[in-house]
Amino acid sequence: MMDDCIFCKIAKGVIPCSKIYESQNTLVFLDLMPVNRGHALVIPKEHYETLLDIPEDILKEMSSSVKTAAGAVKEGIGADGLNIMMNNYEAAGQVVPHAHIHIVPRFKGDGLKLWPGGKYKKDEMEKIRKSIIASL
Amino acid sequence: MMDDCIFCKIAKGVIPCSKIYESQNTLVFLDLMPVNRGHALVIPKEHYETLLDIPEDILKEMSSSVKTAAGAVKEGIGADGLNIMMNNYEAAGQVVPHAHIHIVPRFKGDGLKLWPGGKYKKDEMEKIRKSIIASL
Repeated sequence: MMDDCIFCKIAKGVIPCSKIYESQNTLVFLDLMPVNRGHALVIPKEHYETLLDIPEDILKEMSSSVKTAAGAVKEGIGADGLNIMMNNYEAAGQVVPHAHIHIVPRFKGDGLKLWPGGKYKKDEMEKIRKSIIASL
Repeated sequence: MMDDCIFCKIAKGVIPCSKIYESQNTLVFLDLMPVNRGHALVIPKEHYETLLDIPEDILKEMSSSVKTAAGAVKEGIGADGLNIMMNNYEAAGQVVPHAHIHIVPRFKGDGLKLWPGGKYKKDEMEKIRKSIIASL
């Protein structure tokens, strides 16, 4: 546990949360600052900062918890869709440095804008592909 | 395979893709319409429409592929952060009805806006929590 981490405190029960679900190594609770009502967070109980720090077995358990909770969120509040989002590192908008996956319920015509468009310049895509493969 | 599904065709090699990585049941390739350069997609090779349709073992394998590819994307293009996003159902912005997870590299000051704020009205959070738990 990290003493100054709010999600560690929530996982240990030091700070209360609006709990939805838990498994052995994961916890799911409602976000206090919802993008839409029913917005939930899935966290590992242990402290890992980002996706790249989470051990494989814990990550797999998180993916199961996401599916279980997302199905319940959709049915429980009658949502029409679900965005699953994980922001890693400050440059990607990660605010709490304890890895967490957002479940955001969506409703037809809710007007949330989460997705801008984009396109590649000529040859740029293949160049990028090669750089990524070289880093596998 | 769904005959009219572009991601099934990519998985079967009928349509080419800018491949980054694959595992037994998953495939990772660059998105043709990148939100940022290096934007990649992780798909199951078999056709499942949304998160809620993917069998648990395939979902776990997808989570491993996401981590592997995300690390390579970050290192390969020198990104500062990573957004992982999965849009499920049309109301959440899902365009291709074959489940896919986006890996979006982020750069300091890139100005991408993926995240609006929000808050609950009094008592609304607890009411919603109960509805969701009843649907588990």
